[in-house]
Amino acid sequence: MNYIHTDENAVYYECGYSNDNCIYLSCGSESYFITDSRYTLDAKQSLKEHSSGTKLIIDFNLSKRVSKLIAKAKIKKIFFDPKEWDYYRIMQIQEQTRLRWIAKISLSQKKRIVKNEEEIALLSKTVRLGAQVFDSFSNSIKQNGIGKSEKELFFMAQSAMSRHGKNALSFDPIVAINANAAKPHAHPTDDRLKHGDLLLFDAGLKYKRYCSDRTRTVRVKDGFTFDNKQKYKSKKIQKAYDAVLKAHDKAISKAKSGMRASQIDAVCRETIDKAGFGKYFIHSTGHGVGLDIHELPVISTRSKIKIKDGMVYTVEPGIYIPDEFGIRIEDMVVMRDGKAEVL
Amino acid sequence: MNYIHTDENAVYYECGYSNDNCIYLSCGSESYFITDSRYTLDAKQSLKEHSSGTKLIIDFNLSKRVSKLIAKAKIKKIFFDPKEWDYYRIMQIQEQTRLRWIAKISLSQKKRIVKNEEEIALLSKTVRLGAQVFDSFSNSIKQNGIGKSEKELFFMAQSAMSRHGKNALSFDPIVAINANAAKPHAHPTDDRLKHGDLLLFDAGLKYKRYCSDRTRTVRVKDGFTFDNKQKYKSKKIQKAYDAVLKAHDKAISKAKSGMRASQIDAVCRETIDKAGFGKYFIHSTGHGVGLDIHELPVISTRSKIKIKDGMVYTVEPGIYIPDEFGIRIEDMVVMRDGKAEVL
Repeated sequence: MNYIHTDENAVYYECGYSNDNCIYLSCGSESYFITDSRYTLDAKQSLKEHSSGTKLIIDFNLSKRVSKLIAKAKIKKIFFDPKEWDYYRIMQIQEQTRLRWIAKISLSQKKRIVKNEEEIALLSKTVRLGAQVFDSFSNSIKQNGIGKSEKELFFMAQSAMSRHGKNALSFDPIVAINANAAKPHAHPTDDRLKHGDLLLFDAGLKYKRYCSDRTRTVRVKDGFTFDNKQKYKSKKIQKAYDAVLKAHDKAISKAKSGMRASQIDAVCRETIDKAGFGKYFIHSTGHGVGLDIHELPVISTRSKIKIKDGMVYTVEPGIYIPDEFGIRIEDMVVMRDGKAEVL
Repeated sequence: MNYIHTDENAVYYECGYSNDNCIYLSCGSESYFITDSRYTLDAKQSLKEHSSGTKLIIDFNLSKRVSKLIAKAKIKKIFFDPKEWDYYRIMQIQEQTRLRWIAKISLSQKKRIVKNEEEIALLSKTVRLGAQVFDSFSNSIKQNGIGKSEKELFFMAQSAMSRHGKNALSFDPIVAINANAAKPHAHPTDDRLKHGDLLLFDAGLKYKRYCSDRTRTVRVKDGFTFDNKQKYKSKKIQKAYDAVLKAHDKAISKAKSGMRASQIDAVCRETIDKAGFGKYFIHSTGHGVGLDIHELPVISTRSKIKIKDGMVYTVEPGIYIPDEFGIRIEDMVVMRDGKAEVL
């Protein structure tokens, strides 16, 4: 099968190296990594270390060079993921070849859906580092977070989550107070944190390119931590919180290899339905995590993916009541010996 | 002319609002802004304030809705910039319409190439804020930057350039010491800053979505600042530095409205050639700056663009000697009354 990638993580998975201007081409019995001269040194060294036999090609014009390689190999069709490519680059390559482009959505992510032991070890480490930051962030909030705006807390969270520059972030953290937490992808506002507020914190970092992802929703008071034992004054919030936690725990304990992803989603959804909050659980239960922060398997109502040992994904039920509050609890799990283990 | 945009800055330029999941469609006598329900409130308010008459349409499936609008308007062809679109979205829209897609590269950037007074005022303000950060960053380095790694300095630079969370960044800052500065797009390493080192700092921030961009190369010693009067111990470095500074100053003083962009590039290149460093000036002289950090006009050997009043671009000659050092000096200029004025 001839195929071509340009997404940084897809390329990295193939040959152990990538950068922001590269193409990986698997074509006949050869594989090529094409990039520009800014990256010659890095690419040479990394490809050698990885020893996959990928040939390094340096060219200012990536598209033209790829066209030539394709023409030389005399291949007639090539598989690609249309979500990875901008229209322009395909246009450029297409102009110079008579190739049949065959669209395969999630071409790379499908290969990456089951993680090997090395990847699981990296993901465990990443999750552990991320969890440590949750602890240090709760201390920072207790020390000097009260009275700060969401924007300022967002900045504190960014600094903390990057471990002051040591790690890249998986995504921009979400720091949302009270009603702002009702937006699943809240942007930070000028609202200020008060004692007793509900605080939703969703954040992750990268370690050796692998992502972590975690969410906690807490009541900010003396001595609070980002654990799951939270007590709210409002009965409605407490009821919603308990429902989310129950859904989260149940989905993890019921998840078994061999199930469909939709069945794990159903466990979450039923638990929240029963508590009377069904219509406020407005997203899917989870997503795979690896090199990409969102990858396969999708854990949703419609996901037909069969869960297997080695898959790593989030379980993150939530309840979002507009203009009132939002709650989400999220952990990453790995399937091992048929069961879901929290990372 | 019917046209369609999805790039955040292209859309913003049309209707004064955009987000990370939107399409702008100008179709017959109507224009539409299509986004999903997460953005209903924001979009409604911003489009109203901008009063361009753009109609807001909320739909979960943007591609499908756009197809319907196109079908209803019975248009036969549409202009688009293939660099803005991922292949997948065009595939989705195309499946449902019989439209002729006409590729126009830089469709939006061509409209934006001459800035109006309001935009120039925003760009001036952005550049001024960015320059202030250069001053504060030199103080931070003097206070506690010596001994820090490039990675740590990068983090300090990010924090400083975002003015501790107040502003978005135009791009990830470049902080490179000695030989690392020989890579024009250096990634931070574990190398630590010592007294007397050469330090290249390239950074910018955004103010009301408009970008700044500036580079200084300095010798780190007591009382140093990010100004252009730098003294190096090495004669070779000093010679290269003087050549870059001369090229920078000359390109700015010689730039006139009515010239071709390639002529400005030639001024830089000749100056560096004459000093004997021609083969080490491995990139073009500059690029336009506005909503995008890289936009038109390109100031390069091959750029046929005619320079006009109201254009804003960088002048950033550089000399990069592998394994030894790199030097770049960059400022943004605006063309006003026929001449280049440093912002």
